[in-house]
Amino acid sequence: MFPQDLIIKKRDGGALTREEIDFFVRGVVHGGVADYQASALLMAIVWRGMTAQETAGLTEAMMHSGAVLDLRDLPGVKVDKHSTGGVGDKVSLILAPWVAACGVTVPMMSGRGLGHTGGTLDKLEAIPGFRTGLSVPEFRAQLARLGVAMIGQTAELVPADRKLYALRDVTGTVESIPLICASIMSKKLAEGIDALVLDVKFGAGAFMKTLPRARELAETMVGIGRATGKPVRALLTAMEEPLGLTAGNALEVIESIECLKGRGPADLMEVTGELAVHMLLLGGAARDAAEARAQLAQVLAGGSALEKFRAMVAAQGGDPRVVDDYGILPVARRREEVRVPGSVQGFVVAIDALKIGRAVMALGGGRESIESRIDPAVGITHLAKVGAAVRPGDVLALLHLNDDARLATAAQLVREAVMIGPEPAPVLPRVAAVLE
Amino acid sequence: MFPQDLIIKKRDGGALTREEIDFFVRGVVHGGVADYQASALLMAIVWRGMTAQETAGLTEAMMHSGAVLDLRDLPGVKVDKHSTGGVGDKVSLILAPWVAACGVTVPMMSGRGLGHTGGTLDKLEAIPGFRTGLSVPEFRAQLARLGVAMIGQTAELVPADRKLYALRDVTGTVESIPLICASIMSKKLAEGIDALVLDVKFGAGAFMKTLPRARELAETMVGIGRATGKPVRALLTAMEEPLGLTAGNALEVIESIECLKGRGPADLMEVTGELAVHMLLLGGAARDAAEARAQLAQVLAGGSALEKFRAMVAAQGGDPRVVDDYGILPVARRREEVRVPGSVQGFVVAIDALKIGRAVMALGGGRESIESRIDPAVGITHLAKVGAAVRPGDVLALLHLNDDARLATAAQLVREAVMIGPEPAPVLPRVAAVLE
Repeated sequence: MFPQDLIIKKRDGGALTREEIDFFVRGVVHGGVADYQASALLMAIVWRGMTAQETAGLTEAMMHSGAVLDLRDLPGVKVDKHSTGGVGDKVSLILAPWVAACGVTVPMMSGRGLGHTGGTLDKLEAIPGFRTGLSVPEFRAQLARLGVAMIGQTAELVPADRKLYALRDVTGTVESIPLICASIMSKKLAEGIDALVLDVKFGAGAFMKTLPRARELAETMVGIGRATGKPVRALLTAMEEPLGLTAGNALEVIESIECLKGRGPADLMEVTGELAVHMLLLGGAARDAAEARAQLAQVLAGGSALEKFRAMVAAQGGDPRVVDDYGILPVARRREEVRVPGSVQGFVVAIDALKIGRAVMALGGGRESIESRIDPAVGITHLAKVGAAVRPGDVLALLHLNDDARLATAAQLVREAVMIGPEPAPVLPRVAAVLE
Repeated sequence: MFPQDLIIKKRDGGALTREEIDFFVRGVVHGGVADYQASALLMAIVWRGMTAQETAGLTEAMMHSGAVLDLRDLPGVKVDKHSTGGVGDKVSLILAPWVAACGVTVPMMSGRGLGHTGGTLDKLEAIPGFRTGLSVPEFRAQLARLGVAMIGQTAELVPADRKLYALRDVTGTVESIPLICASIMSKKLAEGIDALVLDVKFGAGAFMKTLPRARELAETMVGIGRATGKPVRALLTAMEEPLGLTAGNALEVIESIECLKGRGPADLMEVTGELAVHMLLLGGAARDAAEARAQLAQVLAGGSALEKFRAMVAAQGGDPRVVDDYGILPVARRREEVRVPGSVQGFVVAIDALKIGRAVMALGGGRESIESRIDPAVGITHLAKVGAAVRPGDVLALLHLNDDARLATAAQLVREAVMIGPEPAPVLPRVAAVLE
């Protein structure tokens, strides 16, 4: 088998066999397929796509390119959640302890933020002392004891994805649904989970700009789950305006804790709650959605979700007092309000999540490249929501910043992001569909 | 400018600017564009194609990636010929001295054979002592003195093509008309020629299998000539059956000399003669085709084309006695006839040039890879021609071989190649069209 034969087959619209896909993935990781051959094949895949069978084969080949965790000795069903990423998306911080408090084991591996989307690891690391780099034995021990752990991808898992992703990033081959899905699913399946809930976002602030494109992505991932024997459910959720009222790492930790105290904003609680329902169903902790909702409400009201979060922070080296004292988190030096201009009156009809994400980046709270350092203290709170009535002088957002030079750009982006019209816009449900 | 921006632009169907193409070619040769980025862009070009303007820009950028010969101090118009390659294609050996004998300067740079197509350099090097690796000053001096020199591509010219071709060869990105045309034309334009005649072959034994595809290739190359201010004419010539009666390096030298003695087979003389007519017209040596034909006939009959060949062989270190004594060339140890089987009678209706080419390779006369050594002595003579009436026991071909183990495969390929039917097939003209 020669790499160029695979490339030519795909270039001409053919479907690769499982043996050919294995040869390719093995060759990328261990040599035998040069980087320039891998990138040519990746571009041919962007062009020609992959069948459901090829995509599942690629996922499995990538999954088995390194270690695969075996969590079968832990009791119960292990369920994780993955989000395609959005602005203000702190869902994982609320969801993981909440679901674990209902008795489902949540072995969560997350990523860092890049560009305008934040990352769960960056948010958790805003908590002083919090370690996301647990070893596999530490991860396993914590799961056995608490039922929840939130860590970064370990180096042993899916080396093929690291290699391929680095290549895709610099060769214009990121935008391919089979490649995106195989990357996500290979990492999730290597965690040793039994089932997975996906939050596939669509809209201005999401990777997939339209609902049909998001649906295609979701269907592909559900299909991979079917082909590999792991139940996968996908929620299609709107990411037109940011999720919640807050964007920025430490600030989102505060909003997450507020949610766990039962004081979260409606849209954020809606998305988190629906994802939680499906995790409980897949985890066997509830017989139907109504039972799941009742259990989730009880666990939240009774405080055990919050206590699970506190215990997880403590177990991973973080300061658990953060739950009661937000002053432990890094605080920005200066706050500045962005207000409705003098002559404008009406209703917030849209908020461009992408521009809000870029405003957080402008403040220093996001990553331009993988090497960038981020400032955990900066960000935006008190962000207006679609549907709100506004009058001149009303606060549209509160900016938290450490570098005065960054204020003007960020404030301008926020002003551009918030669209105000004469009539109230309909507020659509965040969860547009559930695929299984 | 980042390489991935160019890749994404082309991936999404955009046209690259001249600046972007220059950046890419410079980056490939001097660094700044990694091989894996170059191959991804090449695959995107295979997918999306290039406009005429992009193709001309790529040609010029590649041409200027290294030295460009300046032959303006030599008298007269400098005209070269390029063939897209076929089986039994020894046209250059006849054409170059013939046209030079008519007063047109022919600075010919050729390639080696690969796969089933032979290469001019390999044929010339079958002549003991013949040097195809002249230095640029030697090349120039010989052109000034004789008006003809036949050499290989020098390392100073078009380094971008060597780099890109090596990459295309192993990344499934050879089959792209803009890339093929830019590769050919950049090398030809860097030779310092004033005009070019192209022999674009179509059919079973050619790179382009169909006439429309060959026409597209020819039109693109004529278009590059127009865009770069160099007159280019393209002849579309059939390569269904091999050209002439002979395939194999030393054996084709003999057939070429026979042609220069006025004893060549009709199809080979037709193609060579028509190419010569257009070289004379572009070279200003004749006012119209009739005058060109008369001059070519006179030069051939008078022996000055043969004398030009003899002088060129001597000038390039070869043994000029080859013209009178074919025994100077390497001779195969054994000859075996391939005959019409006992019960078959009728007419040769087709000969698959690809299979004949593969038979020559099976005998050791072709290159499997760039590193392969070839045996100059082996090959095929006395090959039947389409239209011939055949009866049981007639000779279809004479195989010349040095390795008995190779006989069976080669003989079988020849038998498969020659199709015999009950009715005579029409013999079509070799030259299907002329584009300018």
